[in-house]
Amino acid sequence: MKAKAKFYHAGCPVCISAEHGVAAALDTTRFDLEIIHLGNNKSRLKEAEIAGVKSVPALVLDGTAFHINFGADISALK
Amino acid sequence: MKAKAKFYHAGCPVCISAEHGVAAALDTTRFDLEIIHLGNNKSRLKEAEIAGVKSVPALVLDGTAFHINFGADISALK
Repeated sequence: MKAKAKFYHAGCPVCISAEHGVAAALDTTRFDLEIIHLGNNKSRLKEAEIAGVKSVPALVLDGTAFHINFGADISALK
Repeated sequence: MKAKAKFYHAGCPVCISAEHGVAAALDTTRFDLEIIHLGNNKSRLKEAEIAGVKSVPALVLDGTAFHINFGADISALK
């Protein structure tokens, strides 16, 4: 079974760069990658916060949050 | 030809988490991954700085620097 990879972003330039860079570089034979735009999907904010996401862009791999550069604080998306 | 992926770190807990998480998740059929410990290889500091690395851990993909969480400022490694 593949592991979960969730890439949370808000459409900002830093987010797009991280999506095209880091998220696109993941091994999709081992990870199911889901891209989540938190600006457009505010219902997903809670799960992101529970996973430890404090800013976007962020990549959650198998439940561990990795913040990639800094686009926006998650509080700015509420 | 594979693209270059360089993971710069300094052996800190945040670095190790990012190495085991993000660096290990890269698609090595598309990327040649090199792991560089800047604390032990100070001669590589300059190339990291030129690539835009400001803190570790950082992943440089095809010349673009992505800082992953925050372990240490690169100035602390000199």
